[in-house]
Amino acid sequence: MPERKYDRILRIAKSRGFMWPSSEIYGGIGGFFDYGPLGSLLKQNIENKWREIFIIREGMSEIETPTLMPESVFLASGHIDHFDDPLVECKKCQENYRADHIVEEKLEISTDAMGVKELQKLISENKIKCKCGGTFSEVWAFNLMFKSEAGAGKIKRDVYLRPETAQGMFVAFDRLYQVGRKKLPMGVCQIGRSFRNEISPRQGMIRLREFTQAEAEIFYNPRKKEHPKFSRIKNHILPLYTEKYQEEERKEVLEMTVEDAVKDGVIASQLQAYYLVLAEKFFEEIGIPRSKMRCRQQLSDERAHYSSETWDIEILSEDFGWVEVAAIADRTDYDVSRHAATSRKKLEVHDEGEKFIPHVMEASFGIDRPFYCLLEQSFVEEEDRTYFKFTSEMAPIKAGIFPLVKKDGLPEKAEEIFSDLIKNKIIVKYDSGGSIGKRYARFDEIGTPYCITVDHDTLEDGKVTIRKRDTTEQEYCKTEDIVEKLKV
Amino acid sequence: MPERKYDRILRIAKSRGFMWPSSEIYGGIGGFFDYGPLGSLLKQNIENKWREIFIIREGMSEIETPTLMPESVFLASGHIDHFDDPLVECKKCQENYRADHIVEEKLEISTDAMGVKELQKLISENKIKCKCGGTFSEVWAFNLMFKSEAGAGKIKRDVYLRPETAQGMFVAFDRLYQVGRKKLPMGVCQIGRSFRNEISPRQGMIRLREFTQAEAEIFYNPRKKEHPKFSRIKNHILPLYTEKYQEEERKEVLEMTVEDAVKDGVIASQLQAYYLVLAEKFFEEIGIPRSKMRCRQQLSDERAHYSSETWDIEILSEDFGWVEVAAIADRTDYDVSRHAATSRKKLEVHDEGEKFIPHVMEASFGIDRPFYCLLEQSFVEEEDRTYFKFTSEMAPIKAGIFPLVKKDGLPEKAEEIFSDLIKNKIIVKYDSGGSIGKRYARFDEIGTPYCITVDHDTLEDGKVTIRKRDTTEQEYCKTEDIVEKLKV
Repeated sequence: MPERKYDRILRIAKSRGFMWPSSEIYGGIGGFFDYGPLGSLLKQNIENKWREIFIIREGMSEIETPTLMPESVFLASGHIDHFDDPLVECKKCQENYRADHIVEEKLEISTDAMGVKELQKLISENKIKCKCGGTFSEVWAFNLMFKSEAGAGKIKRDVYLRPETAQGMFVAFDRLYQVGRKKLPMGVCQIGRSFRNEISPRQGMIRLREFTQAEAEIFYNPRKKEHPKFSRIKNHILPLYTEKYQEEERKEVLEMTVEDAVKDGVIASQLQAYYLVLAEKFFEEIGIPRSKMRCRQQLSDERAHYSSETWDIEILSEDFGWVEVAAIADRTDYDVSRHAATSRKKLEVHDEGEKFIPHVMEASFGIDRPFYCLLEQSFVEEEDRTYFKFTSEMAPIKAGIFPLVKKDGLPEKAEEIFSDLIKNKIIVKYDSGGSIGKRYARFDEIGTPYCITVDHDTLEDGKVTIRKRDTTEQEYCKTEDIVEKLKV
Repeated sequence: MPERKYDRILRIAKSRGFMWPSSEIYGGIGGFFDYGPLGSLLKQNIENKWREIFIIREGMSEIETPTLMPESVFLASGHIDHFDDPLVECKKCQENYRADHIVEEKLEISTDAMGVKELQKLISENKIKCKCGGTFSEVWAFNLMFKSEAGAGKIKRDVYLRPETAQGMFVAFDRLYQVGRKKLPMGVCQIGRSFRNEISPRQGMIRLREFTQAEAEIFYNPRKKEHPKFSRIKNHILPLYTEKYQEEERKEVLEMTVEDAVKDGVIASQLQAYYLVLAEKFFEEIGIPRSKMRCRQQLSDERAHYSSETWDIEILSEDFGWVEVAAIADRTDYDVSRHAATSRKKLEVHDEGEKFIPHVMEASFGIDRPFYCLLEQSFVEEEDRTYFKFTSEMAPIKAGIFPLVKKDGLPEKAEEIFSDLIKNKIIVKYDSGGSIGKRYARFDEIGTPYCITVDHDTLEDGKVTIRKRDTTEQEYCKTEDIVEKLKV
């Protein structure tokens, strides 16, 4: 098997400190990754871009709620009843498999929306066996939430690690509504960890058991599905892979303006269209080319139990195909209604003379998958070097600061420049090891856009050499202008 | 019982959106809090200040590792064997209690370092009963980690929610050492959630089951306990509450320069002293007055199993007394040695011609407790208003933007100023509701340092009125100078 791009990227990621499998010294544990020093910086840059768009530009509120939540939350949300995969265990090798995947592979049919019983029937009737030759256990519905207990002895309570950050916002809806002075629409966001006990997570960064989400929940009046800023984006063209296109097994997408898409009923509402555009904008601003993205409408039998209409944003990966990285879902009044019923609290709002339970438009983003996709899209392999062509805003390290040699006062001058940049909260790195060429290569490899060299001329004319990563062009720059040059 | 300051602060915190108990609509669950829109901003400002000190100024690396980790990690770290509280359960009311607390209360003796058997003996001999009159169960050692399972069926594995972020850094030590080009000392940091299944968490924000930590682990050569920047801080005076002072039950602290403290052996090393100063600096920079802090040496029988010497930083709270908010612990080679032995990996370093397992100096901070302490220390109650005297850097909202009236083009002008500030990524809030006085009061209450009013003069001379929170003084400011004025 030829080495995949994923493997080449992961090798650099591990050796340079972007990310690596967690608990490596203990043989690892599937579905968990560590972000190293560079990865953590890049991940924060991605999260901060998301904040810039949703919190600062759109004016939404960010909150932070616990990852452990009591059972009642997930009884209400439907996760205890519906959030499961059909599993089988091989009686011989004891490996677990998704029953639907087994059936799909062997019978080459679609199992969408099939229940446990149906899958069981197909496995029995077709005498499907494990690849080790063993027979399978009965199919069972395996809940994907991690469960634990809070408290001790007889008064302990079941708690679950949240499978989405969203529930923390739904459960706190009434408090948020009061704090926000009772206005709709109300946008609330959260960036944080979520957890899903995936079976045999074998796609590296693409299928994690612990992952970071950035979710925006917009509580709205269902009579008002317009968006006040829609006119600003109405001429934006989206690549729409509609339900119809998928059924017809077309390869291309439907390119149309969001205005037409809403008018023609391709996208159900202005509200949903607005957040699709925002989502695409976010990915574009972190550095994913538009040509590698599409908006895919979820088929009616693949939608989550809470959604009336969902559009995924997908990014094309060389090794993983189209990867879902975000979803804009109209969750209707499902969640708030369920929490109202289960908690017996009146979670109603008053708007325009009416009392009702608010609906929710959700813009839900993974952070880990876009992180990997960004590495992949930015990875450039040339004959004599590899580099990540991150934007200055995304690059973990904004510049390398090099003294040409380790004498004649050059290290002192370079350290001075380094300190000055640090004081301006610009993340740069000092490096005096090896030839300038080797240092360029080291900083290229991690996607640093600029290398700044202090040489003997610097001591005389106060100018440094700035070398640009992508073009390898060099230019002279006055010491006092460096901060401005590097500021994004 | 008179209302505590905590209750008055919590009332404002809930109504204005700093924080509130999680899952309120389900009756809450002890030890879990939500951070609301303002709380989330304030918490991020605290975390960013920590990053500024440890990552940017000190040049340490930040990483991000999962909160769920496999059992082997905690077998090695000693948390499965040692991280427990002695519990009893009342046979009548079924409430759980810390056995050591019960004994301390009834017998008025210290139970430090007492084991399960000793506590059991004291409870039996003294016939100690529950306040409900019921008798107690046997004392048992209750492990404080939250446990769960990853995977399904026969191949599932026990996993635990980390009780400290530190283990993620210890387990990845070798990888980090390679990435860092094999240099000591090596500082690695992590900010993230940790979990402890506290029994009967009844102190609100002070004792959480899910909380945020910011931890720095400095891997060092045990022959080099000096710090290269020690001379910069050697004249700094620390308020030291030494083991000796505590034994003598003194009320005052020992004030001495860190240079003398190290010379006299009060603090064991330059390295430990350096991070004590850094920790105090951090709290001072977020706004905790020096007079409300002390450094308390942990007594030898209260230190964690991994530490040879620990100093806590404590902040004096009106309602909770001295609250531990950080700890500088010399963890020696305990953790890395244990992981090396358990994983059978050589976790050695080469430094100055020697091979050895590195030692670790840890600077461990809670974020939630400092968050509450900052609210408490900043809370000012005057006859006709209350406010939080946050620094501009910490304040969740930097300014309120008000049009004097909702007509004559004033809202448009105010919105223009608002947009300009937002573009500069300054978090401000537009408010046109009610009298200017009411708006001042609303923004004072949440600790906003400036209120900017646009009036009819603004349209003519381009000047706005800036009113300062603490002094209520007003000054005129040119529209184009506002950004500079608000930038921290």
